Amino acid sequence: MRSTAGEPTGRAAAIRTVAAGGERAPYDRAMTRPTAGGGIPPELARLRSSIDNIDAALVHLLAERFKATQQVGELKAAHGLPPADPGREERQIARLRVLAHDAGLDPLFAEKFLNFIIAEVIRHHEAIAGAANPPA
Amino acid sequence: MRSTAGEPTGRAAAIRTVAAGGERAPYDRAMTRPTAGGGIPPELARLRSSIDNIDAALVHLLAERFKATQQVGELKAAHGLPPADPGREERQIARLRVLAHDAGLDPLFAEKFLNFIIAEVIRHHEAIAGAANPPA
Repeated sequence: MRSTAGEPTGRAAAIRTVAAGGERAPYDRAMTRPTAGGGIPPELARLRSSIDNIDAALVHLLAERFKATQQVGELKAAHGLPPADPGREERQIARLRVLAHDAGLDPLFAEKFLNFIIAEVIRHHEAIAGAANPPA
Repeated sequence: MRSTAGEPTGRAAAIRTVAAGGERAPYDRAMTRPTAGGGIPPELARLRSSIDNIDAALVHLLAERFKATQQVGELKAAHGLPPADPGREERQIARLRVLAHDAGLDPLFAEKFLNFIIAEVIRHHEAIAGAANPPA
């Protein structure tokens, strides 16, 4: 088990939702094991365990993606390039629609997903550009 | 190179955005290579190439996730369980917030992301439940 002593306050903030609700610690490996007595079908527990693993992978990939776009934002600010790049976004969406189709994912959902991510990235880039060029 | 002859029409539909705009084929591996003469800094091209690789991984993981939730939806419909499960969702969000914090991703964004995915999943589950129990 992992000790909670000396954890940064950010981590405490991340789990505040749970503490407020009086629930058990959220990052409990046992949570993703099939629930023996939880009253749900074993097949459902097995699928949920896979979903939890996929979600952990998604979160870690998203963390890497934002590390890359953070660098992109700093580069764009340094070169005076605009935060948004409609041509690039159009090509990204078109490519992901094809990848999604080939992987059996709804291409429209892939497009919505990328737009959701890009909106967050542009918000970050605007913050970076604003910090680099504060209003006079 | 991959031949486009005999591709299913769904693939053609997936790339219609590009065809309509007169752009080049969207799934072009060269697109993710650093652009020598594109007028963008080489470091930006390198970062974009990594972002494109991460996005392809995200799309494939999402495809797997929806395959799992599709099965969950069918199981729930078969057992008469409701499409949404607020307790499960609360635990998923709390866990992902902690994982996000540890990975350097904004926990609030991780929560928004999961809500975005869950909204789509519930939409699928409701469609499955509706198909299993058509209105009389």
